[in-house]
Amino acid sequence: MHVYSFLHAVREKRPLVHHITNWVTIFDCAQVVKSFGASPVMAHAPEEVAAMTGIASALVLNIGTLTTPVVEAMKQAAVAANQKGIPVVFDVCGAGATAFRDEKSLEILNSAKIAVIKGNASEIARVAGLAVATKGVDAGAVAADLAEVAAGLAARRACTVVITGPEDIVAGDGQLLRVKNGHPMMANLVGTGCMATSVIGTFAGATPARVPEAAAAGLACFEIAAEQAARKTKGPAAFKQELFDCIFALDEKLVESMQKVTPA
Amino acid sequence: MHVYSFLHAVREKRPLVHHITNWVTIFDCAQVVKSFGASPVMAHAPEEVAAMTGIASALVLNIGTLTTPVVEAMKQAAVAANQKGIPVVFDVCGAGATAFRDEKSLEILNSAKIAVIKGNASEIARVAGLAVATKGVDAGAVAADLAEVAAGLAARRACTVVITGPEDIVAGDGQLLRVKNGHPMMANLVGTGCMATSVIGTFAGATPARVPEAAAAGLACFEIAAEQAARKTKGPAAFKQELFDCIFALDEKLVESMQKVTPA
Amino acid sequence: MHVYSFLHAVREKRPLVHHITNWVTIFDCAQVVKSFGASPVMAHAPEEVAAMTGIASALVLNIGTLTTPVVEAMKQAAVAANQKGIPVVFDVCGAGATAFRDEKSLEILNSAKIAVIKGNASEIARVAGLAVATKGVDAGAVAADLAEVAAGLAARRACTVVITGPEDIVAGDGQLLRVKNGHPMMANLVGTGCMATSVIGTFAGATPARVPEAAAAGLACFEIAAEQAARKTKGPAAFKQELFDCIFALDEKLVESMQKVTPA
Repeated sequence: MHVYSFLHAVREKRPLVHHITNWVTIFDCAQVVKSFGASPVMAHAPEEVAAMTGIASALVLNIGTLTTPVVEAMKQAAVAANQKGIPVVFDVCGAGATAFRDEKSLEILNSAKIAVIKGNASEIARVAGLAVATKGVDAGAVAADLAEVAAGLAARRACTVVITGPEDIVAGDGQLLRVKNGHPMMANLVGTGCMATSVIGTFAGATPARVPEAAAAGLACFEIAAEQAARKTKGPAAFKQELFDCIFALDEKLVESMQKVTPA
Repeated sequence: MHVYSFLHAVREKRPLVHHITNWVTIFDCAQVVKSFGASPVMAHAPEEVAAMTGIASALVLNIGTLTTPVVEAMKQAAVAANQKGIPVVFDVCGAGATAFRDEKSLEILNSAKIAVIKGNASEIARVAGLAVATKGVDAGAVAADLAEVAAGLAARRACTVVITGPEDIVAGDGQLLRVKNGHPMMANLVGTGCMATSVIGTFAGATPARVPEAAAAGLACFEIAAEQAARKTKGPAAFKQELFDCIFALDEKLVESMQKVTPA
Repeated sequence: MHVYSFLHAVREKRPLVHHITNWVTIFDCAQVVKSFGASPVMAHAPEEVAAMTGIASALVLNIGTLTTPVVEAMKQAAVAANQKGIPVVFDVCGAGATAFRDEKSLEILNSAKIAVIKGNASEIARVAGLAVATKGVDAGAVAADLAEVAAGLAARRACTVVITGPEDIVAGDGQLLRVKNGHPMMANLVGTGCMATSVIGTFAGATPARVPEAAAAGLACFEIAAEQAARKTKGPAAFKQELFDCIFALDEKLVESMQKVTPA
C-alpha cells in the first residue's frame, strides 16, 4: 500500500474536518488536523451543527467529556453527514467506564451510518458486546483476539473498525490491515488516542472512497511522526511538540521507508 | 507611532481581561494575556459574568464554539462592560460559516456598544453585509477593498474594526492604520487569530482612550514576536512555544526597530 | 519526612483521578497527572459522575469556569466519593472574585466531606470568612497570618487546607507543614495552581490515610520539577514543557536532595 499518496491527498484537498469532541484535547485535535495541512472546525451548538457539517468533508465525534446535549448535537450532525455523503468517524472514548457512555455510544451508533468506529482494545470490545475491565479512558486488558473482534464488529455494523494500541488493527470493506508503527511514549501523553481519531477523519475526508486504507495510512503517518519525535526527545511534553512538528515535516521518502502497514 | 509605550502601559497596569471565549484556544488566550504581563480571567456563568466584568479592565468575546446560553452570557457581560466604561472586543470567529453565527454575531453587536470588532477578511466582510465564501474558521477570499470594508463598518457601527491577515487593517475614530508585521507560519498554528483578539483586549484595557492605536500596537507586538519565533523554529508547535516566550521577552529596542505600523 | 516514598506510591498504584474542572487548564491537569505516572479522567455529565467517581481513587473539583449544572455534578460526585471513601480535593479557584463563586464554594463544601480545600492566599482567606481583595483568579494581598488561617479553617471543617504561594502551607490532622520549593516563573504560566491541585489529588489518591503529608509531598515534587525547569528555560512556554518533562524524570536522589518540606 502506498501510504504517502493518502497524505498527499490530504495536503492537496485540505479537507474541512468538523469536530464535536471533548474539552480536554480539543486544541490538540484541531492542531493535528492543521499540522497535516487540513482545516479543523469545532462547533457543537445544536442550531448550527448540521450546517457546519454541510460545509465539511468529514465529521469527527468523540465522547471524551460527553453530556446529553452534546450527544444530541452529535446525532444531528451525523444525520447531516449521511445526507451529504461524508464519512463520520466516532471515537468511543471511555466506553465501558460507565453505563452512560455505553448507552450513549449505542445511541450514536444507531442514529446514523458511522463510517469508522475507533477505540482502544477495551473500548471496542465493550462496543462489540464483550465484558471488559476499564480504567477510565485508558485501555484495559481484553481476553479475545482483537482482529476477530474488529472484523466481527465491522461486518455487523457495515463499517470500518479501528483498534489502536501497540499494533493497530483496521477492519472494513472485507479488509483487515495492521499498522505496526508507533512508540510507547505515546501512552505518556494525554490525547494521542483522540488525535489519532482526528487524523483518521482527516484522511477519510480526503479519500472517502477508500476509508479502511485511508484510516491505516493516517495512523501510519501519525505514528511515524511519533517514532521520529520519540527519537529526539525524553519527556512527554517535548515529545508532543516534536510530534506536531514531525507531522508537519513528513515527506514521501520518510513515510514510505518507515511505514509498516500490512494485511493482517 | 510609538508602539512600545502601549506595551509599557500593559506591563505597568497589568489589566484584568475577562474572556468569554471558545473551548479550543481558551488556554492560549489566557496565556498570551499573561505572557504580556497582564491578568486573564475566564468565566461564562450567567450568574457571575456581570460581576466578573465589573472588576475587569476589558472584556473579550469570541464565538468560536458558541452556544445560545454562552451568547446570552456574552450579552450580559457586554452590558456590564458598557456600564463600567471598559472596552468590549468581539472576535466574530467563524462568521459566514453558518447562519447561526451570523445571527448571533448581530445579536451581540446590537446588544451593547462594542469597542472593537475583529475578524479575518471573510468574517468582517460578512458582518459588514457582503456575500462571502468561508471555510469554517479559516479566511475565504473577499472581492472588495478591505480598508474600505473596515472603514465603512467602523463608521456605521461607531467602533474600531480590525481585519487580520498578511497585513492587518485597523479602522476607527477616523483613523486607518496598517500593521505589516507577522509571518506565514502563524497560519499553521490553531489559535493565532483568537490570541490576536485577546492581545487587542489587553492593550485596549491598558489604554482605553486610544483604542485604534492600542489595537494596532498590540497586533504589532504580537506579530513581531511571531517573526522572532519563526526565525528560531521550523514547525508550528516549536513556533508556538517560542511565540509565547518571545512575547515575554519583548523590549523597547526590538519593538521599535521592527514595528511596521503605518497610516493606511 | 521522606517525600519520595509518596511519589513512589503514585507510580506503583497509578491512581485513577476523576476531575470535574475548568475548560482553561483541563488538558494540563490531565497531563500533570499522567506525567506523574497516574491516570486522569475528566467527566462532568450528571448521569455519569457518580459512576466515574466509583472507579476512581480520588476526586478533584475545580471551579475555575464553574456553571450551576457543573457544580451540581460536582456535588453528586463528592457524595459518591464519600460513599466510596476516597479523598475529595477542592480548588476554590477564583473565590472572592464574585459572590457566585463564594456561594457555590460554600455549597460544595457543605454538600459532602471535602478532604482538601486548596487555594491561594486570598481564595482561602475568603473561604475562611475574611474580607479580601482579589484580582480574578490571581492572588490578592491578605492581611492575616496564613498559617493561622489555614489551621483555623482545617480545624473548623475537619479537613486539610492548602494555601499555595511563594511558600505553601498545609494544615490538617493537627499538623502544620510548609513547602518552600517552587520558583517565581510559575506565576507567569497559566494553570500552575490548577495543576498543583491535580497533583494533590493524585498523591492523596495513592496515600489516602496520610492526606496532609501526601499533599505536601505532591507539592514538593511538583515544585522541585518547577525549579529544575526554570533553571533550563527563559520563558513561560519553554518552562511549561520542561515542567512536565522534569516531573516525568523525577527520581529519589533529586527529590530528597531538594525537598524543603518542614513542620511549620
